[in-house]
Amino acid sequence: ISPSMPVMIVENKEHGNKAYCNLNEGLGKVLRFGAYDEEVIDRLNWMEETLYPSLKTAMEELEEIDLNTITSKALHMNDEVHNRNVASSALLQKLITQGMLDSGVDREILTKVYEFMSDNEHFYLNFSMANSKATMDSILEMEYCTLLTAMTRNGTDFGIRVSATGEKWYVTEAPVVDGLYFSGYSKEDAARDMGDSSISETRGVGGFAMAASPSIVQFVGGTPSEAVNYTKEMYEVSQGKDPNLTIPLLDFQGVPTGIDLRKALRKGIAPIINTGIAHKEPGIGQIGAGIVRAPMDCFKQALQQLSEDLDL
Amino acid sequence: ISPSMPVMIVENKEHGNKAYCNLNEGLGKVLRFGAYDEEVIDRLNWMEETLYPSLKTAMEELEEIDLNTITSKALHMNDEVHNRNVASSALLQKLITQGMLDSGVDREILTKVYEFMSDNEHFYLNFSMANSKATMDSILEMEYCTLLTAMTRNGTDFGIRVSATGEKWYVTEAPVVDGLYFSGYSKEDAARDMGDSSISETRGVGGFAMAASPSIVQFVGGTPSEAVNYTKEMYEVSQGKDPNLTIPLLDFQGVPTGIDLRKALRKGIAPIINTGIAHKEPGIGQIGAGIVRAPMDCFKQALQQLSEDLDL
Repeated sequence: ISPSMPVMIVENKEHGNKAYCNLNEGLGKVLRFGAYDEEVIDRLNWMEETLYPSLKTAMEELEEIDLNTITSKALHMNDEVHNRNVASSALLQKLITQGMLDSGVDREILTKVYEFMSDNEHFYLNFSMANSKATMDSILEMEYCTLLTAMTRNGTDFGIRVSATGEKWYVTEAPVVDGLYFSGYSKEDAARDMGDSSISETRGVGGFAMAASPSIVQFVGGTPSEAVNYTKEMYEVSQGKDPNLTIPLLDFQGVPTGIDLRKALRKGIAPIINTGIAHKEPGIGQIGAGIVRAPMDCFKQALQQLSEDLDL
Repeated sequence: ISPSMPVMIVENKEHGNKAYCNLNEGLGKVLRFGAYDEEVIDRLNWMEETLYPSLKTAMEELEEIDLNTITSKALHMNDEVHNRNVASSALLQKLITQGMLDSGVDREILTKVYEFMSDNEHFYLNFSMANSKATMDSILEMEYCTLLTAMTRNGTDFGIRVSATGEKWYVTEAPVVDGLYFSGYSKEDAARDMGDSSISETRGVGGFAMAASPSIVQFVGGTPSEAVNYTKEMYEVSQGKDPNLTIPLLDFQGVPTGIDLRKALRKGIAPIINTGIAHKEPGIGQIGAGIVRAPMDCFKQALQQLSEDLDL
């Protein structure tokens, strides 16, 4: 994201903090997975010149879109809103289309924007991430609080933030992902885990909500019962359950939310992350998706820092 | 459905037979549940004058819509395409909207049709029923075949058809439904089970596919694990599993399909049906939804007839 790029603004209406996201380009050869050839640049230009202005017009008509409602409905429609965004993207498209129809968006442009959204089953992903970010930033610096406010990776390093120590990062080597590869690629081609989308799991969706999305295993690997068990396991490291984001299959329990550093370390359970896999060479893009565990070394660093800060 | 009403045509492309459906009016006060006041008639007139012609234009553009693909995707999105049609309706709306955008449908009309579809989470139901009908009619009269081709109810009687005896009906009293009632209504207000939508279960969706839709229990009652168990039980009375309609949670097994009269009678397992509940007085409409078992008396009649026909 460069300074002149348009972004969507996601506001935490309870706490007033904001998060921002660009729009999802789709799967495969896309900028966010390191591809940058003409096809990629052309798409980004079209997005800047046509897609963003249309959404701006639609948003002026709609005033706001309640992302928590979309996420909540989507969890009842087999999405975990990280690696599966089929239902959430359709629900978002439904609202945006209504906004475009009711406002002055030109029919030809509206049709193209509509097709773009129809073709991208991950259109909601970026909104979902910014929504998770806006949620977790509300506890960015709470005294004594050992909940994680972020987990992120950049292809070489893996970092976490813990509420009590604010914007400080605890960093270790990023893991290699065990996953399903797109046709023609294998583990040999993979970069280490990459991206800031693990804000999803930090908030309690994605890997933490896999019991809501048994069919996700077709994309990230494993069996449906493993998917259910991941969620059950994540209750062990979480502070609570979110009553607004429920999982039908688990008798409508809320998703496990608020990763407690101390619980994870005491129980030796590393948070699970549903993740995309990037090619290790630039220019190729996403080559698969899979499941990965957060490396616990940065958790230990954080606990050490907290102990020192509190003179324990 | 009267002779002058427009209908959608659903064709079984494998066998060439066709089924037909009108469009879903929504829940509550609607003609198909016995309501007929001005609000109902006005809506039906709007549907005839505006909705149907718009869909006709869209269909000319689209040529056809593959309903099996929608059903298949929707089963991976928590629909059982009988009493829960949230995802399937959204997927259908997506295609129809594309057809309307690409063809000459007037923008103002397009916007109203779009809103109508957005507001009706059961818009797919009628398509789903006609699709099930077109599927089951393909085995309408197969020698020796003891699979059911239809189950239906009219508020007083419950009837089934069995493949080997073609269009003959075996009829008994319709059951009372155990279900969840809309606010202000109770079992005292309910008519006996009604409607031809149980063609859904005859084909293997609806109650038979509840394991794909644990959240359906919020609409029809029961717990998610009961929902899963209904599907498992229905494998006992079914001829096979449909490999094109799979259930993620059951390790992507196909839905139980083809109710075998003999299996149901031998095992004493009555097919399960997800159903809507109509008020027993005319003019009020749907007052709830629930789960019901097919009454086995008509199964016994059918077996008796088959035994006589075959001199057993």
